[in-house]
Amino acid sequence: MTLPTTLEECKHWDERDPFAQTRAQFKLNPQLIYLDGNSLGALTHASVERTRAMIEDEWGHDLIRSWNTHGWFDMPQRLGAKIAPLIGAAADEVLVADSTSVNIFKIASAALMQRGTRHRILTELGNFPSDNYVLQGLAQLSGNAIEVLAVPRSEIAARIDASTFLVALTDVHYKTAELHDMRELTQQAHSQGAKILWDLSHSVGARQLHLNSIKADFAVGCTYKYLNGGPGSPAFLYVRRDLQTSHCPGLTAWMGHEAPFEFTEDYQPAPGMARFRGGTPSMLSFAALDGALDLWDDIDLREVRSKCENLSELFIARTANLTGNGLSLASPRESWKRGSHVALRHPQGYELMQALIARGVIGDFRAPDIIRFAITPLYLRYADIWKAADILGEALAHLSPTEHVARNPVT
Amino acid sequence: MTLPTTLEECKHWDERDPFAQTRAQFKLNPQLIYLDGNSLGALTHASVERTRAMIEDEWGHDLIRSWNTHGWFDMPQRLGAKIAPLIGAAADEVLVADSTSVNIFKIASAALMQRGTRHRILTELGNFPSDNYVLQGLAQLSGNAIEVLAVPRSEIAARIDASTFLVALTDVHYKTAELHDMRELTQQAHSQGAKILWDLSHSVGARQLHLNSIKADFAVGCTYKYLNGGPGSPAFLYVRRDLQTSHCPGLTAWMGHEAPFEFTEDYQPAPGMARFRGGTPSMLSFAALDGALDLWDDIDLREVRSKCENLSELFIARTANLTGNGLSLASPRESWKRGSHVALRHPQGYELMQALIARGVIGDFRAPDIIRFAITPLYLRYADIWKAADILGEALAHLSPTEHVARNPVT
Repeated sequence: MTLPTTLEECKHWDERDPFAQTRAQFKLNPQLIYLDGNSLGALTHASVERTRAMIEDEWGHDLIRSWNTHGWFDMPQRLGAKIAPLIGAAADEVLVADSTSVNIFKIASAALMQRGTRHRILTELGNFPSDNYVLQGLAQLSGNAIEVLAVPRSEIAARIDASTFLVALTDVHYKTAELHDMRELTQQAHSQGAKILWDLSHSVGARQLHLNSIKADFAVGCTYKYLNGGPGSPAFLYVRRDLQTSHCPGLTAWMGHEAPFEFTEDYQPAPGMARFRGGTPSMLSFAALDGALDLWDDIDLREVRSKCENLSELFIARTANLTGNGLSLASPRESWKRGSHVALRHPQGYELMQALIARGVIGDFRAPDIIRFAITPLYLRYADIWKAADILGEALAHLSPTEHVARNPVT
Repeated sequence: MTLPTTLEECKHWDERDPFAQTRAQFKLNPQLIYLDGNSLGALTHASVERTRAMIEDEWGHDLIRSWNTHGWFDMPQRLGAKIAPLIGAAADEVLVADSTSVNIFKIASAALMQRGTRHRILTELGNFPSDNYVLQGLAQLSGNAIEVLAVPRSEIAARIDASTFLVALTDVHYKTAELHDMRELTQQAHSQGAKILWDLSHSVGARQLHLNSIKADFAVGCTYKYLNGGPGSPAFLYVRRDLQTSHCPGLTAWMGHEAPFEFTEDYQPAPGMARFRGGTPSMLSFAALDGALDLWDDIDLREVRSKCENLSELFIARTANLTGNGLSLASPRESWKRGSHVALRHPQGYELMQALIARGVIGDFRAPDIIRFAITPLYLRYADIWKAADILGEALAHLSPTEHVARNPVT
């Protein structure tokens, strides 16, 4: 792989970059090199305007009528249809609603009620904890009629068996960015008669996904990372079309009713994905996401991924020189095994990240020793990566060894 | 009760009104008489500014750091503390999170796991349907280990028995505005060893509530009606302090963990109300609500209620003259039995409401024959009510009898 070898070269690459215009659609803080887009994506001008319009022109002026005249009621489906091509799904298989946690609960509870004699949800030890907390809560609510088993990554495929009704995994590890083979694990689940639920929070908008092609059963994901939907923007869920009739969530509310405005006494699930809607959606958060999603009309995810690999390789290559200072790569070295962030390991990771933030390079820390840098090709430049690596070197050189002794390892 | 008897008198009353200045804090559409604040409250200038600040100054400029530096993380508790005095609760008993439906699920699932040998949730036939859909979903998820029984209003007290673990009611009927006696029903539930959950969606911000004084166990409510939080603004939930340790929701996620950022494998509920948090909250919707709640610092709910009764009585008195046209009062005639909206009945209710909306009077229709008018004293004037009654008379006089035959009853 050819990469720029000087800051000047980085700037030339940035001039030729297919996303140079895309960057202009973001309202960025020029004082920061922002490498935390996997925690909270940056603000687009479209989100500012779309939210203003919903608040002032729609809510303020047209009030309750906006649910119909401004299409609020259908936004969960409409935004789902915008996300569908990014994850390799059909428009009528994706819905935006609630939080990722609530959506995991809806899907896992639906799977629970269709489990037959199976009693186990299999997940990964070290999976994003909140996902597992949701599953554990469901198991407790079931009176331990089901159990949640978390096994190390290397054992997952082998541990899927006839007792497993659901495999729940995150395709990109939130710490190391290591990728799962989604196709193979999906096939393995199916070969044992289990269904699979993929949490795509760390990959949607960062790489191409192929849910239909790999025959994935279920998926969820958040929209405030690489989709730039804003803090706590609503999550999405995907249910493969042929499962939509047999599966109904255990958390049901009026927007998922087949006729919500008839106000009938008994719940009757809507046909299709609509049954996975919940209560009244937080429309202002939908507005910001709506604006941010418009960006994707003109974007080719293969180009996003290609630039992501370039930027990541550049960052890894330049930080490799710093390993004499206790820094090591926590992410896989091979691009094809890695998601869209780079994780480094350092015994003083917390202090190091604080020092970086003080210098205007924003990443984040995950205990005990991981520092994460998100690579967001839509608004990051080669020159940013070059400078971030320089600043990391400076910060490392100034770390106090006293703090090292006092704070490491974080327990 | 003395009421204005001419439009001129109404205008004099409006000049002396304690909420004349409050009205100026709303960004109202001057072309409308808005009587649908029980579906979606009006926009405040504070919500416009607070949302703009969160989007541009916080998200846009400070990005991920805003979770700490701008207090995003604590907003569920902070907004809960703002709502607490409006419902007669302590600050640490109220939390803002998710939707009303999700919050009902959290509480009902917590009660389910503490039910002992009891197996029944008792609710009202004709309760707001979505609440009952949530409970029905939970019963289905439990494999019918529990059941949901809905009985007519007059039978509720008598039907609470030793099989009942939870009574779930809405204090103001969403159609007729008829009030329950919250204190008596709470006592009745407790006398049978059951807990009670009150949905306060139609009363919070409209009248004084006394959850602690009546020893209510649980409550939920939405914030987009009389609290003006905006479309789908996040809901609140209340759990009496002494129940917070024993009760844990069946829907658990990282924000409810005792140490969310330690990312431990197993869920450990946070102490107190925090365990009732879910996934990452939709912050932009919190911002709008935050702005709207500031209004309440200077407002006495007794004055709100007093003006509400005046406006409602004026509306009922003036529309009573129209009963020759098939119109009748669906709400209780006595103020003390009525919430903060007035429901009328007409065989052509749907057409009548459409005709009113076309004339700039916005209320809503609930099948088969109810038209609702919300009385929101913070931004409604006596003159508005006077004119709305006149326009209702006009609309009635112009109703086409053909449509009557064709569309009534709505089925």
